[in-house]
Parts: sequence; C-alpha cells; structure tokens
Amino acid sequence: MSEDKWKTAITEIKRGEIRVRGYDITEMMGKLSFSDAVFLILKGELPGKEESEMMRAILVSSLDHGVTPPSVLSTRCVLSGGNSLNAAVAGGVLTIGDVHGGAIERCARILQSWGKKPDQISSVAKELVSEFIYKRRRVPGFGHRLHETDPRTVKLFQIATDLKFSGRHMELAGAVETELTNALGKKLPINVDGAIAAVISDMGFDWRLGKGFFLISRVAGLVAHAYEETVREKPMRKLGNWNFEYDGPARREISGSR
Amino acid sequence: MSEDKWKTAITEIKRGEIRVRGYDITEMMGKLSFSDAVFLILKGELPGKEESEMMRAILVSSLDHGVTPPSVLSTRCVLSGGNSLNAAVAGGVLTIGDVHGGAIERCARILQSWGKKPDQISSVAKELVSEFIYKRRRVPGFGHRLHETDPRTVKLFQIATDLKFSGRHMELAGAVETELTNALGKKLPINVDGAIAAVISDMGFDWRLGKGFFLISRVAGLVAHAYEETVREKPMRKLGNWNFEYDGPARREISGSR
Amino acid sequence: MSEDKWKTAITEIKRGEIRVRGYDITEMMGKLSFSDAVFLILKGELPGKEESEMMRAILVSSLDHGVTPPSVLSTRCVLSGGNSLNAAVAGGVLTIGDVHGGAIERCARILQSWGKKPDQISSVAKELVSEFIYKRRRVPGFGHRLHETDPRTVKLFQIATDLKFSGRHMELAGAVETELTNALGKKLPINVDGAIAAVISDMGFDWRLGKGFFLISRVAGLVAHAYEETVREKPMRKLGNWNFEYDGPARREISGSR
Amino acid sequence: MSEDKWKTAITEIKRGEIRVRGYDITEMMGKLSFSDAVFLILKGELPGKEESEMMRAILVSSLDHGVTPPSVLSTRCVLSGGNSLNAAVAGGVLTIGDVHGGAIERCARILQSWGKKPDQISSVAKELVSEFIYKRRRVPGFGHRLHETDPRTVKLFQIATDLKFSGRHMELAGAVETELTNALGKKLPINVDGAIAAVISDMGFDWRLGKGFFLISRVAGLVAHAYEETVREKPMRKLGNWNFEYDGPARREISGSR
Repeated sequence: MSEDKWKTAITEIKRGEIRVRGYDITEMMGKLSFSDAVFLILKGELPGKEESEMMRAILVSSLDHGVTPPSVLSTRCVLSGGNSLNAAVAGGVLTIGDVHGGAIERCARILQSWGKKPDQISSVAKELVSEFIYKRRRVPGFGHRLHETDPRTVKLFQIATDLKFSGRHMELAGAVETELTNALGKKLPINVDGAIAAVISDMGFDWRLGKGFFLISRVAGLVAHAYEETVREKPMRKLGNWNFEYDGPARREISGSR
Repeated sequence: MSEDKWKTAITEIKRGEIRVRGYDITEMMGKLSFSDAVFLILKGELPGKEESEMMRAILVSSLDHGVTPPSVLSTRCVLSGGNSLNAAVAGGVLTIGDVHGGAIERCARILQSWGKKPDQISSVAKELVSEFIYKRRRVPGFGHRLHETDPRTVKLFQIATDLKFSGRHMELAGAVETELTNALGKKLPINVDGAIAAVISDMGFDWRLGKGFFLISRVAGLVAHAYEETVREKPMRKLGNWNFEYDGPARREISGSR
Repeated sequence: MSEDKWKTAITEIKRGEIRVRGYDITEMMGKLSFSDAVFLILKGELPGKEESEMMRAILVSSLDHGVTPPSVLSTRCVLSGGNSLNAAVAGGVLTIGDVHGGAIERCARILQSWGKKPDQISSVAKELVSEFIYKRRRVPGFGHRLHETDPRTVKLFQIATDLKFSGRHMELAGAVETELTNALGKKLPINVDGAIAAVISDMGFDWRLGKGFFLISRVAGLVAHAYEETVREKPMRKLGNWNFEYDGPARREISGSR
Repeated sequence: MSEDKWKTAITEIKRGEIRVRGYDITEMMGKLSFSDAVFLILKGELPGKEESEMMRAILVSSLDHGVTPPSVLSTRCVLSGGNSLNAAVAGGVLTIGDVHGGAIERCARILQSWGKKPDQISSVAKELVSEFIYKRRRVPGFGHRLHETDPRTVKLFQIATDLKFSGRHMELAGAVETELTNALGKKLPINVDGAIAAVISDMGFDWRLGKGFFLISRVAGLVAHAYEETVREKPMRKLGNWNFEYDGPARREISGSR
C-alpha cells in the first residue's frame, strides 16, 4: 500500500551509496564546507559565493550565549539527573521555543509576508509598524534584553555590506528599524534573531525553517555545556536551600472518611 | 553562597560582548569556518590546518542517512503529533542513543583506553581482539548492516592519508580491523563510527564527547526531515492498518466485585 | 535577590516532611486514591464524591490506544536507539501535541470561552456552530477517525448521568453535537477528547491543563510500550526496505571549484 | 513482510472496541481505580487486594517533591522557552535518570538478583553488604540527602505491615539496612526508592520497569509545575546576574590568517 510508504526527497540510500539532494556524500566530504553542506540539505541546492559566506557567519554567530539561557539550564539539569549526552542535548533543543530563538521564525514570517507587497519598502515598513503599534504587539526580532546594540547583528550586516549581499527582506528589516525608532522615540535595534530572519529570507528560505538555523548552530554549544557538566559538576543539580520559596496553603488535614 | 553559582569556562557574556573560549564572537564570525568554530567550542582551542580539514570532513559525513533511521522516525512522529520544529528535532536527538551513533563513543573509549598501553600497536590490537572474542563481545565501530565497505569511511581515511593526518588511535583502529579479519576469517571493516572515533581520538577529544560530533552533524538532517514532514505530509502519522498485530490475551471480563 | 527565588504553591519540603497543597504526603498515602491525589495536585483542593468518580474514569479511559499512535512510535524508536526508559517515555510525551490529545485543550478552551455567555445553551451552541462553519473550521473534540461512536465517550457520559454530574459545559458540548448534526446532515459525535474537555471544564479546571489529563493517563501506556520494546524487540528499529521511497533529485555532481 | 509488523500484547483496537490486556476499556472505566488500571497495563493481570493497596500507596508517594529537583527545573525551563505543556513535561520526564528516581531500578535489580540465592535472607544480606563495601560501591536505595528518616518509607512499610504484605525482597531490603548499619556504624536507612524497589519486586515486577512507577506518579507533579509556570511566571527563565560565573580563558585574538 503505497500510501504507507515514507517518502523523502532529502537523501537517497543504496548499498555503498549515500546521496544528499543528489550529491554523493564522499564528493561532499572532499569539497564542501560544513556550512555549505547544511545549506544544501536545507535548501536543496548549493549556495552561491555570497550565500555561502552569509550562511557561515550565521551559523558561527549563534554557537553559544553562556550558561544563563533556559536551554543550557535544561541541558545541564537533564545531564545532572543521570542521563546521556544525547538526552541532555535533546532537553536543550526542546527548550528553544517561541521566546528563545523563536523570534527568527516569527520575524521571517512577517518579513516574507509583508515583503510580498508591491509597494515601496519605506511605505511597507511604515504600514507594518503602524499596524503593530495599533494592535499593541511587539515586532519580533527587534530589541534585546542585554545588548543595546547586539555585536552579532552589527557584524552580520557588515559582512552583508562587504559582500553586497542585500535583498528586499534586509531592506525591509532596516526600514522597520527606522520606523520603530521614529514611532517610539527611542532606538529599538534589530537584534540577531531579526538579522538572521532577514538574511535567510533573502536567501529564499521558508520562515518555517527559521528556528532550524539557530538549532543547528546552538546544538554545538549545548554539547559543550553537557560535556562541561559531565566533567566538572557533581550529579543531581538542585536549587540551593536559599533560592526557593513555598507560598501555598499551610498545613491542613484530610477531613472525614474518604 | 558561591557553591550555588553555575560556573562555565565556555562563553563569557557582558553587555555588548560575547566571547567563546576567549575569542570575540564577531572576530569568529569574520574569520572562522563553522566547523572550526565547532572545534573551538568543544576543544577550547582552534584547530591546526589538518585538524580543521578532518573536522570539516567528519561533520559533512554524518549529515543524513535517509528516512529510515529511528531518529528520523521519531522526529517525524513528534512533528506529526502537532508539535514545533524544535520539539521534533529534540525527539530525533533523543533517539541517537547507544546503538544509533553511540558506537563513536564506545569505540573511542576503547581506542583511548587500549591506546595508552606502551606496547607496539600490532600487539595491542592482537590482545584487544583476543579479549573481545574471548568475552564474546563485538568491538564497536566495526561492521555495518548495509554498506559492506562504508563509502564515508573510505573517504575519511583517504582525506587523512592525503593530509598525512594519522596518529596512534587511527593506527590502532587499522590494526584492529586486520586482527578481526584474521580472527574471524572474513572482513569486518571499520565503519564510519569507528573511523570518526579514531580521528577524534587522534585530535585529542575525550571519548565522552563521541556522540556530540554525530549530533552536531545530524541535527541538520533532522531539521530537514522535520521541515519536509511539515510541508509534504498530513498530520498524525500512524501505522497503517496492515502493519501491526495484537498478540496479547483474548477478550475477558473483570470478575468479582472490586 | 528575591526576584531570583523559584516560588511554588504546590509542595512544601522540610526535613522529614513533604506536604502537597498543605496535606502531609503520609496522610495522603494512607487515605487517598491515586486519581484523587492527582486531582488535588492539579486543582489545589480535594475532589467531591462525584468529581472523584469522574476523575477516576477519565484517567482510566486514556491509558492506551494500541501500538499505532505517533506517541507510541516515538517511544519505541527512542528506546530502540539504545536509550533508557525515561528517555523513551519522554519521546512519547513530546509527541502528544496539538493534533494528538491536543483536542482536549482546544475543545475545553472553546467550551469555557463560549460557556461564559449569559444566553441559553441552545442558542450559544447554534451561534458557535454557525461561526465555525462560516469560518470553515472544525470544532475540536467532535468526530473520530476510527470509532464512529467512541465507546469511551458513551461510558463517560453514562457515568456522569448515573452520578447526576453535569454542568453548563457538558450541556454545551451536547448541544454543539446536536447543532453539528443538524448543520452537516450527518452525525459528528463528541469524541473522547471532547467528552473529557467538557467534564474537566465542569470540574473547574483551566483549559490550559487540558493536555495534562491525557498525559498523566497515557504515560502509563507509554511505560508499558517502552518495556515491551525492551523485552520483545531487537535494537535499532528501522523502516523495512520496502516501505520507504526516495523521490528527490537524481544523481548529480558538484560543478566548478568551491 | 511480517517481520516489519509492529507487534503488541498490550492493547487491542478495533472499530468501536478498545481492550487493555483483554479487558474492555469501558468495563475498566466502570470498575477499576486508576492505580489498578496502571497495575494491569504494566503487569498484564489485575492486582490482588494487597497489591492494589500497595500500588496505590506507591503512586501517591512519589507525586511531587517541590520545586528543587532537576526534573522540575527542566520542566519549567522548557515551558519558559515558549513551549507547550507536553514539551515541558517531556523535559522533566527526560531528566528522571539514573541518579534521579533511578535508584528504584538499580535497587530492584540488586534485590531481584541476590534474592534468587537459596540461602537464608540474613546471610544473603551479609554477603551483599560485604561485597558492596569491598568494592567501595554504595547500595542504591539506602540513605537520603535530606530526610534522615524518609516519611514516605516509614508509611509504605507501615501500610505493608498492616496488610501483612511482605515477601522475600522486602525482607532482604530490611536485612540489608541492618547489615549496613552494623558495617558502617551509623544508620543508612532504606529510602523511598529502596522501599518501592522492594515492594514492586515482591509484586513480581521486572526491575527494568523500576523507573516507570516513579515516572507515572511524578508526571502529575510535572504537569502541576508546568501549569504553575504558565500562570505565575514571565517567559524566558534565566539565571540571575549574580549566580553564574565565567572561569574560562581571558580575552584573546585569532592569530594569523585562516
């Protein structure tokens, strides 16, 4: 019953042969950088020179952000409960949700949807910002809790400028930043999620792959954290005695017969 | 209470600064390939030229192996149950356990442990194979269910040969292959897990990081499969009507009052 | 800094004492059924007699549904990759998403939102069904792929009738079923997700806990499947040779120098 | 190809019929407590009266242990990253590994293995303790970080005594406690993991199901914590500024051309 067949257009496997998107894995092993191979498997085609450079810079940019993000806490807690490296990394990947790395997806969705409008970029941006302010919604991909100007964003745009890599979505992202500044009276800069969203949109990636770029990069950081937990920490991480608090009902008894 | 501090030597974060193993992320974004950045975060130091090439080849080699492995089934089932891309990828990462990618870890452990012996490689290999055969245990990293000669292994060793990259662990792996062939009377070739185990051991990586190399590479494949499931398949994957079977107790009734 | 304290109103822990929602765990161990204890931890209060019976019936109803659902496939694939029981069960829990058990949450949300309207149930139901049909959306919790009349729903409603347990949300669910039948000209019965949604809404549970009831019940089934996989199956589940298909690009070569 | 069929002896599904271990789910919904239904699906048979009581007490005992265990931290971090209830609970289930709930499995394994010896319980216990002390290994299931005498253990054994429920494994556990006290010169009491291990062994459960009892019980606590996080906390949990520390390499630059 062919309906039950699991189909794929990603990789073909035969005895002694592995071909990704049509290319032999051994040829890829000899000729492709890892970031180009990632581009190929996600996009179905090899990147051009500029795309290759942007892809490399994106994947390097999101490698790690220290011990504080919730994905690292999960990774270390899972490891610490007496689990394997893969389970720990899975716990971290699981944590990278709508508010942690998720802005890439949401911002790319907005840029791709508004970017289709035939109007001039500046008027599209004006309309977009008006609508979000009217609906009292934040535009995902702009502003950062810690970095006033995110160094990764600055670098990513600089690399793009040097390569003359820019398309409608990057222009739209820039115009939205300008409009947000005008509308709010203070700078709400594009953050690294927004910058990646703009770049992958100009590379022609579907916004639904947005979180994927972050995951592929950050998983290296998660592996490093899981390993560090293995070699440097005792098992069974717990909150210390002083940093939790119970504020529920006081002691009581089960009344009557049950 | 400093005991409750979460310590890390991986990445330092300050307002406007992100440094991985001491290197500024923006400098890394301008100068490093993604596989070199991965090497850095795992090892703590930048790779030399040969290590850089080997690392690239390893990460490209494990990108994907089609729709059949259990990690891809899990990824697609999680997605199919109505979950996000990160949850689906987490399901796949979770699946990459002791018998699926896990041979890298187990083989590297053996190579690193036996490789410490001061004897000649050939006699270490002979002793190792004797012991495993005596204990009726398989040596992890040798033999493959599908590929008689794994094309990825051949290519990985060829790249190593071209680079003159070879150390005690790769020699030991080769000698073990020879001894296994002698002892068993048929070829039980090093597979890609064994080859990766040997290479990362010669790079000085701890065997406990073994699964990490596979995870970092394969997560790109898992993202591609999750995305393909999103755009090509209907929700709620199930086993079709004809490929499952119940073989438990026949219908019965709860007797007596409970 | 108290902002960094992790607060909870669920369980208080002191040396030699564990109190859930104020009740001593040892008193609970002596006096409460497991389903009453679950009710307590989720609701914060002990159930009344009718609520206790409904809770028990709900938790028994969702225990398992055979080997076919995607959550069982994930559980078995994770186990099969060489992972522990807890990792396998986590893979299954992960799979129980918006289209697999998720209808409880979505249906309860609708019943709780529409149930607040002051109008008569019959007119609320009529308006609700009109709106969903107009928007071409399915009402979650009605219809089942396999069971024309879901035996679990019938039993759940029968138990509710016997106990005279019924409130505004159960009435609304019944009225929606009637209106759907009228509007579509064929029966689209409440399924077990819809029935559970109605019952927990009448017990006063927030719809955001909807998936929780299913998870707490089904995790027992997932443990049973993971264990059965452990004792009855060989490691490394794979799709057989005949039930997958590659339909991507044909063999090609990497052109030019990269 | 029948080899590709997924077999199960747990639950049979037909149109309009669901039977667990042969029993109709609707009959179960009318007649069984949730803990009896859990016993049935794990064991394949219904419990006797004493087993039913012990099972109930076990499942109530492990419901929750406050906000501090790593499984709760993971659950809350996953939720906090912008993920669904099921993903958050999966993160917690994932965390319940070899050192967190895992002692049930390891202790049951030991009790079942040593319990098979034909000798008197007291001499088996003496030999077991000697061996563990000689090998400098801890006997899992004895001692607790917080509770000198775990109230759950005391209660569980009291219920067992009242029911006259006791078999060879519970006796062995008691004898091991005595021998450990003699050998170490201080009390190392059976903890709740050890007590559960002994009871389920006397019920005839395979030690490989050990973690399952803990999972089935604790998942209710994890659902409660995930829900509490949803309604009481802001998204994106992070370690505060003061409770982490970087102790890796100082700032440095990438030297040479790469």
